Amino acid sequence: MGGTGLRAGLTMLLLSLDLVGTFVFAISGATLGVRHRLDLFGVLVLSFCAATAGGITRDVLIGATPPAALESWHYLAVACIAGLVTFFRSRDIERLKNPVQMFDAAGLALFAVSGASKALAFGLSPIMAVLLGMLSGIGGGIVRDVLVAQTPVVLRSDLYAVAAAAGAGAVVIGHQLGVPAAPSMLVGALLCFWLRFMAVRRGWSLPLPPSS
Amino acid sequence: MGGTGLRAGLTMLLLSLDLVGTFVFAISGATLGVRHRLDLFGVLVLSFCAATAGGITRDVLIGATPPAALESWHYLAVACIAGLVTFFRSRDIERLKNPVQMFDAAGLALFAVSGASKALAFGLSPIMAVLLGMLSGIGGGIVRDVLVAQTPVVLRSDLYAVAAAAGAGAVVIGHQLGVPAAPSMLVGALLCFWLRFMAVRRGWSLPLPPSS
Amino acid sequence: MGGTGLRAGLTMLLLSLDLVGTFVFAISGATLGVRHRLDLFGVLVLSFCAATAGGITRDVLIGATPPAALESWHYLAVACIAGLVTFFRSRDIERLKNPVQMFDAAGLALFAVSGASKALAFGLSPIMAVLLGMLSGIGGGIVRDVLVAQTPVVLRSDLYAVAAAAGAGAVVIGHQLGVPAAPSMLVGALLCFWLRFMAVRRGWSLPLPPSS
Repeated sequence: MGGTGLRAGLTMLLLSLDLVGTFVFAISGATLGVRHRLDLFGVLVLSFCAATAGGITRDVLIGATPPAALESWHYLAVACIAGLVTFFRSRDIERLKNPVQMFDAAGLALFAVSGASKALAFGLSPIMAVLLGMLSGIGGGIVRDVLVAQTPVVLRSDLYAVAAAAGAGAVVIGHQLGVPAAPSMLVGALLCFWLRFMAVRRGWSLPLPPSS
Repeated sequence: MGGTGLRAGLTMLLLSLDLVGTFVFAISGATLGVRHRLDLFGVLVLSFCAATAGGITRDVLIGATPPAALESWHYLAVACIAGLVTFFRSRDIERLKNPVQMFDAAGLALFAVSGASKALAFGLSPIMAVLLGMLSGIGGGIVRDVLVAQTPVVLRSDLYAVAAAAGAGAVVIGHQLGVPAAPSMLVGALLCFWLRFMAVRRGWSLPLPPSS
Repeated sequence: MGGTGLRAGLTMLLLSLDLVGTFVFAISGATLGVRHRLDLFGVLVLSFCAATAGGITRDVLIGATPPAALESWHYLAVACIAGLVTFFRSRDIERLKNPVQMFDAAGLALFAVSGASKALAFGLSPIMAVLLGMLSGIGGGIVRDVLVAQTPVVLRSDLYAVAAAAGAGAVVIGHQLGVPAAPSMLVGALLCFWLRFMAVRRGWSLPLPPSS
C-alpha cells in the first residue's frame, strides 16, 4: 500500500468502477422508464435516480450534504448518457441483458463497499455502517421502482440486498479487526459480487412467508 | 420530579415505551409485507421502515443527523425481531389484532409526543413542532404503504393523524405555558391514545369530500 | 437596483409570488386528493406536500435545515387554506381550470428560479444549481403523485420539467456571466412561464421512446 503510484492507480480504479456502476444502474432505471412509456425527461430522471438515490440518501442520513452525487457533474453526465442510449436503443440494451447483469452486480458490490466505508468514516456504529452500505447499493433501485408505482423488486426476490449487506459487512468486520481498508474492501466487493452472481445463475433466493 | 430515582425510572419508562412502539409499528410493517408476499428481506425492510421512517424523516428535517434510529442498534434489533416473528407466525399475529391495535395507539401517542418535544428542543416554532410530532407518529406508516405502492392508509381514514397532532399539540401548548415537560407529555400521550382508541372503537372519522 | 424602496418592493413581490405559487400548487395536491376520495386530513397533506416538498427536498439536499417551508407558518397556512377551499368547493375549482393552469405556470417559474438562486448561494456548481432549481419546481408534484400511488405526471408528459430547467438555467447562466440577480431571475421566470404556457396551449411535448 506504500507507493504513491499504487495509491493513485487504486483511486483511479475506484473512480472508474464508481462511474461504471453509475452507468449500469442508470441503464436499469432508463429501461424501466422506457417500459412504462415515460417521455425523454422521465427516462432521464429514472436513470439518475436509479444511479444515485442510494448514495444521496446515505449522505443525507449521515449529514454529508450536499451529497457527493450532486457535487460533481460526472454522475449526472454518466447517468444522462446511459439514459439517452437506452431511450433510443432500448432493443439493443435488452439484448445485452447478461452483460448488464454482470455490470449491475459489480456496481452493487462497489456501492455497498464504498457506502459502508463512508459511513464508518462518518463515525457510525458497525451495524449501522452495514445498513447504510446496503442502502447505498439498493436505494437507487427502490426509488426507481416507487417512481413508477411498483413495489421495489429488491423487496421481492433473490439475494440482491443480502449480497449488498454481506459486502458491506466484510468491510465493517475488517475495520473492526484493524485490517487496512483496501484488502477488506476487495474481499467485501468480491463476496457481494459472488453472492449476486450465484443468485442470478443458480436462482438462490430468500424464503417467502409460509403460505397460510 | 426532584428525585434522581424518579427521573431514572421515568427515563427507563420512556425508553421501554419507545421500544414497545417500535416493536408494534414494526409488526404493522411486517404484516403488510407478508400480505404482499415479499421475501424475508422485504418483510424486514418494511418492519424497520414502518417503525423508524417517521423519526428518521423528522431528524433529517431538523438537521439532527445521523438520526437517532440509526445511532443505536436497539431500534434495528427490535424491528428485526418483530419482523421475524411476524414472518414465521403471521397467523398468530393476525389473531392478536386487538392487543396490537392498543399497542399501536400507545406507540403513536409516544412517538407524537416525543417527536414534538424533540422539534421544540431544536428550536422549531410551535406550529412546526406540532407538524413534526405528527410526522414522527405517522411517517413510518406512510413510507410503509408507499413501498408496496398503496395510498397510505393514514391519508384515507379515521383519526389516526389527528390523534397524533392532538398529542403533539398538547406538548407544544404546555411548553408555551411554561408547564414542565413531563406532565404535558403525559397529557399529550393520554389525549392521543384516547382519541385513537375512540376512533377504533366508535368509528370516529374525518369527513370525506362532498360527493359531486 | 439602488433604491431601498425598489428593493423592498421587489422583496414583497417575490414573497407574494411565492405564496401565490404555494397556493396554486396546494390546489393541485388537494384536487388530486379529492379525486382519490381521501379524507380531510389526507387532502390537507397532499396540499402541503404538493406545495412544499420540492423546496423541502432541495433544502435537505443542500444542508439548509430546517427547511424554509418549515421555519415560517405562512406556507402551512396558505397550503391549508387552499386545501380547505378545494375540499369543500372542488367543483368550482375544476371550473377554474384555465386560470389555475396559468398560476401553476407562474408558481413553477418562481420556484425554479428561486430554487436555483438558493442552490448557487449555498455554493453548488452551476449544473447542480440547475438540477436543484428544477427539483424545487417539480418535486412537489412528484411527491403528490407518489402518495396516491401514481407514476408522477411530470415524468410522463409535456414540457413541465424542461420549462423549470430552462428557467433555472437562465439564472445560472446569468450568475456565471456576472449579471445582477434580479434581471436574470426575471428572464428565467419569463422563459419558464412562456415554455410552460406554450406546452399547455400548443401541446408542445418531449418525444416518447421509439415504439418497439
